[in-house]
Formats: sequence, structure tokens, C-alpha cells
Amino acid sequence: MTVASHAAQSFTGAILHTPDIPAGATQDRSGHVVAGDPALLIRAADVDDVRHAVRLAARERLSVVVRGAGTGLAGGAAAGAGALVLDVSGLNRIVELSADDELAVVEPGVAATTLDAAASEVGLRYAPDPASAAISTIGGNIATNAGGLRCVKYGVTSDAVLGLSVVLADGTLVHTGRRTAKGVAGLDLTSLFTGSEGTLGVIVSATVRLQPIPVRTVTIAAYFDEVETAAAASAAVLAARVRPAMLELLDAGSLREAQDLLRVRGRDAGAFVVAQTDGFGADAEAAAVRACFARFTSRVSVEEDPAAAEALLAVRRAALPALERHGRVLIEDIAVPRSRIARAVRRISAIARDHDSTIFTFGHAGDGNLHPIIVIPPDDDDAGARAQGAAAEIFATALELGGTITGEHGVGLLKRDWLARELGPDALRLQRTIRQAVDPGGLFNPGKVF
Amino acid sequence: MTVASHAAQSFTGAILHTPDIPAGATQDRSGHVVAGDPALLIRAADVDDVRHAVRLAARERLSVVVRGAGTGLAGGAAAGAGALVLDVSGLNRIVELSADDELAVVEPGVAATTLDAAASEVGLRYAPDPASAAISTIGGNIATNAGGLRCVKYGVTSDAVLGLSVVLADGTLVHTGRRTAKGVAGLDLTSLFTGSEGTLGVIVSATVRLQPIPVRTVTIAAYFDEVETAAAASAAVLAARVRPAMLELLDAGSLREAQDLLRVRGRDAGAFVVAQTDGFGADAEAAAVRACFARFTSRVSVEEDPAAAEALLAVRRAALPALERHGRVLIEDIAVPRSRIARAVRRISAIARDHDSTIFTFGHAGDGNLHPIIVIPPDDDDAGARAQGAAAEIFATALELGGTITGEHGVGLLKRDWLARELGPDALRLQRTIRQAVDPGGLFNPGKVF
Repeated sequence: MTVASHAAQSFTGAILHTPDIPAGATQDRSGHVVAGDPALLIRAADVDDVRHAVRLAARERLSVVVRGAGTGLAGGAAAGAGALVLDVSGLNRIVELSADDELAVVEPGVAATTLDAAASEVGLRYAPDPASAAISTIGGNIATNAGGLRCVKYGVTSDAVLGLSVVLADGTLVHTGRRTAKGVAGLDLTSLFTGSEGTLGVIVSATVRLQPIPVRTVTIAAYFDEVETAAAASAAVLAARVRPAMLELLDAGSLREAQDLLRVRGRDAGAFVVAQTDGFGADAEAAAVRACFARFTSRVSVEEDPAAAEALLAVRRAALPALERHGRVLIEDIAVPRSRIARAVRRISAIARDHDSTIFTFGHAGDGNLHPIIVIPPDDDDAGARAQGAAAEIFATALELGGTITGEHGVGLLKRDWLARELGPDALRLQRTIRQAVDPGGLFNPGKVF
Repeated sequence: MTVASHAAQSFTGAILHTPDIPAGATQDRSGHVVAGDPALLIRAADVDDVRHAVRLAARERLSVVVRGAGTGLAGGAAAGAGALVLDVSGLNRIVELSADDELAVVEPGVAATTLDAAASEVGLRYAPDPASAAISTIGGNIATNAGGLRCVKYGVTSDAVLGLSVVLADGTLVHTGRRTAKGVAGLDLTSLFTGSEGTLGVIVSATVRLQPIPVRTVTIAAYFDEVETAAAASAAVLAARVRPAMLELLDAGSLREAQDLLRVRGRDAGAFVVAQTDGFGADAEAAAVRACFARFTSRVSVEEDPAAAEALLAVRRAALPALERHGRVLIEDIAVPRSRIARAVRRISAIARDHDSTIFTFGHAGDGNLHPIIVIPPDDDDAGARAQGAAAEIFATALELGGTITGEHGVGLLKRDWLARELGPDALRLQRTIRQAVDPGGLFNPGKVF
């Protein structure tokens, strides 16, 4: 390709042409495939590479699909014909880490766990902990405004992002936000770019807030007969003015599968809840959590020992891998007002029956963010279609219960049609207006989100 | 005015013409005056009034200057010739308060303290606590993304806003955000409108997060010989992994003046710090705070009794009224990285000397947000000009130290020129592009912020 060979001289990083672009670089973990092959893959080595790539794409009428580790779950990084895939995972330096100001400046290719490890050397941590933290990059976490387990107490990714450096569609590098804990100078463009799923620009640097590692952490787990009592017990914890650092719920099926994968002696239960409390009040809060749980079940355990606590958490972490043993999975991501968690879980069970699908539900009881996992067995040709029907009804249920179609994974390609239903025509039009203003040519990730 | 008399039939609320508009409705607490008289003042009674007013203004080529209680400190609500002043303080219902989902839906004219009082009946509170909470409205708090004392632990206004209803320039009513704790469906327009200072639309409703009232609160105060040791002690608290719910600092002059106003026996000191800890770990955290302070001073007191604690806090609250006894005050609002607080306070003292001005500094040591107060004595004709010179140098110092020109009050009219200096031309252009996209005719608050 003449364009590429001419342009290649401008890049410090690697540039690959169509036949050499690995298939893996055109998809994310949703498995969604966009028709056709991307024209180019540029592995940026620095910010200048990003700016050159953006300008090249604009000149050659290619779209820009930014990717990091490719662990997205909504198809946001899927790329097809006419795309320039811009891989920024090579921008992976921790540029600065200030213990005094509790912040770090990082490039987008740094993994959250890598930052966390560096911060831990000075007693700090990066609070957002998406399940993918070890394998995803912070650029992708910011692009999707990723959540995690700890966000019930410590907030989601956007709560940790103080400022960004972004390459815009004309190749301009702009800086948003600040280094200070507070600041209100101008419109909050940091929050606008956070969660924009690659549709507004390329994030090339982020200033993120760090937080002290809690002085103490206690883990509490409980088995309940019914999902209703588990949800009621979770609500009781919050009503007791406890702020758990984690409050996770597994339904009966997820629990059974996770225990099976871990080969732990199966404890049959209608639902499983694992909570953590942390900080100076961890023990007092743990006692309050235990008391709340004990009102609804006799099967409660409190663990202060890290290894024993880890064993309890392992059950929650094993849920998804356990389900993936049974086939392809659709990982859904609705959020409902917390008071409606039990109703949502029940409704999902009914949807599974109605659509002859296998659905397991676990998620973040502390903030109402549920992950219904629809399993598509490999030997069932029609299961995929039935799963799509079930997914649609899950989204509709989320909206009906006053919730959202995506709590932390994003819209990407997969939920685009549902976004319109959630936002309504006027709000969607406003979203598009802003997108159009920032990226008039529709250079960045066209066809995603909107 | 024929326009008005014709239009008046459309409004449920009151409509006032030029000669009848009270001067107070054209200014905020900055005292800034915009030349000329507004054409109309509409006191909206409901959302339809707001929509009609916006459409009327667009039709008659008037600008729309929204106001609530008029307690802004940056001139954001100042209105002059060609303006339709839209007073939304009459939209003051608490529409919903859900204890289970820890949220409220409120109209913009509700005061934060009114919401707080209603929430307290179910054990909850609205965390943002700007100093003006009793007299300002939540609409204005959202428009300026107001901070407060508790935000060092509980976040600023934007952290509490889940969703908004906004009337746009064409009269469309759009809804942003959600009712759930988490959600990433589309661009984060809630954060875009929060802090937009009336330049993008009219906020007519907000869904805000509530939080449990902490089970316990402890107050710790200390007197230090030097502002450097006070700042070092504050830093030590944060390094000890304590998350104080409040960490306030007064310089020597502010302390002296506040004590004088309160007629408390003067304790001479170079600086005063008052902290609060709260929640299940309040006592343990208070002990840690005391230990940190004790490394730098022997004059530390810990109060668990609410009345005694209130007496300590009263000193902080008295600082501004005490200074207002001496003349007109310029209330500045810089924020610097926390590690630079002491340096900023020292620099401000030097600026006072250089500009022959009287400046007192107090502020939020926990997040680096400082309020240098420049006093302009009534009998000193030249003091105003000297104060402006000092203010400019304070802004320059904030930027030089890696900070911002406004931590929580906003840009409004007063800091417009400085916004360009803080953001730089490219980021400012992007801000204007977005403003232009959302409000193409420049209907809302023209001349403010940008």
C-alpha cells in the first residue's frame, strides 16, 4: 500500500498492512466481528506516532479504531474495512508517581495492576479494580469508564481520573483537567472523554488519583436460602450506615458452578454474598455486616486472615471462568436501583425459562450492577439466537426497573440500538451533537456507541 | 414592552419589565455589575415556564441569565442589557426521596440544607456542603460544581449528581444520567452540565446521591507556630492513611480575626487546623490525627462533645465574616497540589506585601483549595486597584505551582481572562466548540466563562 509505505517513515512504532494484521487486533473479548479487513495497524511508540496516525487516517479517509489490550466486552475495539487500527499499548510508562499529592501520571498502555503495584511501594493504590485489571490497560479502563468491585466505596474510573491528554481528530494534543484534588475551571471535559469509548479522541496520558491502602481489611461471607433474603441482607448493611469496600452477590447457579470449578465442598444455597470492610473502622463495620447478615441466615463467616479471605473472594472470581467451561458466554451488564436487585434477579430467571436459555447472575449488590451470563453451549445451534432474545429482554427489564443497559462495560457495538431506547431521541441527539462537534468528520470509532 | 405583555399570558410565574426589575436580581455576591438593564425578569413557577422563557429569549434575541439565590462569587449570574433574567428559585420541590436507593430528585431552587434536613429524617444526608449551603440553591451548586468542607472525603457536587433534566436553547427538555449508582450508557453529559455555569442550558431537576449520616464524628483542632508546620501536619494525617471528613487551615491573621469576632480568648498562633473524622473508625482516626498533629505542636485538642466540637468549627466559619468587618472583600479560590500548600500561603503573604494589600488565607488543607481574602478598606481609594494586582499575582502563583485559578467557585466573569491562561489555546478552543455545539446561538450566559 503506497500510503503506508510513504507514511511509514514518520512512525517510530510499527506499521502493518492488511494481510499482516493479526485477526486478534481487529476484535475484543466480545468476539464481535466487523466486516472487512482494516487497512492498517499502527503500533504507536509515542504521542507523535498517535498524532501522525490520526492525521494519516484523516488524510486517507480511514477511520481510527484505538485499542489497548483488547479486553473490552462491548465490541468497542472491533475494526473492519476502512479502519486504521491504532494500538496504543506501547505507550506504557508510569511517567510520574507522587506520594505527597496522591496522584500518578500514566500512559494509556499501563495495566491498572501495574500502576497499583507501583503505588503500593509508597503505601498507595489505584482504587478502580475492574475484573480485567491484570490484563486490560488503563486507557481502555478510562475509555469505558470501567467499574469493579471496590467502586461501591471508592468510585468508578471517572472518579479517579483528574486529567487527560487527548489527541483530537485534527491531530491537536489537548490537556483537560488538573493535578489538584479540586478544580472547576471550565467545562468538565475530563469526564466527557472518560467513558467516550474511543469516539472523541485518543487518550495518550492520564493523571489519576491514588488513595492510601486501607490500614485493615476484613472479609465477610454468607449463604442465603433465597436471592430475596440475600438482597435484603445487602440492603440492611447499607441501611446500617456501613460503607463496605465490596458487596458481591452470586445466585444459586453461579455459586454452584464456582464451587465446582474450585473443587470446594459444595454448600448449597439460594445465593451467596461476600463483603469486605476496610480502613480504621473495618472491624466495627465487619461486626455490623455480620449482624445484618445474621438477621437473614445462620451461615455467616468472618475472615481477618488474608488467605482465608482470599478463599472467600475466590468464589466470586471463579464465577465467570466456571461458566465459560460450558460454552460461549454473553456477559451482560445491567444496573438497577439497589432496591430492585432481587426483582431483577428473579426476572432474569424467568427470562431464562421463557427463552430456553441458561443464565447465571452475579454482580455488585452494593451498587445494583448485575452481570447476567448467558451460556451458549457449543452443541446447540439455535442457542445463540435464543440468547439474543433473552439478552434483549434483560435490557428491557433493566430499563423497566429504572436502570441502565450498561453499568460498567460500555455500549460499543453490541448495545447501540439499546442506547437509543435508554436515552430517548432528544438526549441521543444531544450526544450526537457533541460527538459531531468534537469529531466533525466522524474519524474516531464510527458506528460505535451512537 | 409589547413582547413581555404578549408573552406574559404564557407564564404561570411572574414576569417583570425593565424598570421593575430589582437591582439585586442582576448581581450575585461578587458584586460585579454588567452594563445596562436586563429586559425582563421571569420568575419561573414550573418547567413549562422555563421552556417558554428560553423560547421567548431566543425569539426576541435576548440572552438567558439563569439565577437561583444569587450567592455566586464569580459574577456568573450578573445580568445587563439584552438579558432575560430567568429566576428558577421558585422550582423548589423535593420531588422524591428514596431511602432504599439513597437518592433524591430535587428541583433547582431547593437549598442544600433543606435537602439535607429532609434526608436526615431517614438517616441520610446530602454530602456536598458549600459554605453557602443554607442560602444558596442546589441548582447554583450544580451550575458551579460547588465544593465545601466535607468534600475532602465525600467529594464535590459533581460526585453527588447522578442525573439532570436540562432545558436546552431550543426549548427541548433532555434528561442525562440515571438513577443507578453506576452507569456508562453514552457520553457523561451529567458531568458536562455540572459546573457549566449556566452556559449550556437550564437545570430544572437533579437526581442526587444521598449518603448515610456517619455513625460518629470526632473533631480535632491544633495551633501551630508556622504555616509550614501546619501544612506538614496536615500532610502527615493523609500519609497516615486517615481520610478526614474535614481538614481546614487558617493562617495567623484569619485565626486572630475569627477569634476576635467570636470574642474567644485569643490564642496566638502561626496557623490553626481543624479536622473531623467520622464513621465507624472515627475514634481510631481521630487518635491518628492527634498523633500526627502532636509531632508538630503541643497545642492539640480532641472533642467528641458536639457543642465543644461546634465551638472549634465556629472559628473556621467565623473567618470570612470577621474579615468582612474591615471592608469589601475579594474572595479568591485557588487550588494547588497539596504538597504546595505552605509554599502557596507564604507566596500570598509576599504578594500582600508587594501590592500593599491586606490578605488573609484560609481554606481546605485536605485538598489544597485555598481562599485568599483580599480586604479593601472603605477609606482607601486606591486599595481596589492594588487588590486587583494582588489577585492577578495570586492566580499566576496558583498556575505556577501546578494548580488552578478556581477550586470551587467558578470562572464566571471575574476569571474569564485567566481561564485562557490556565487551559491554553487548544483546550479553550475545544471548550468553546462544545459550548457552540450545545448552544449555537450563544443564548445562555454569553460572556461568562469563555
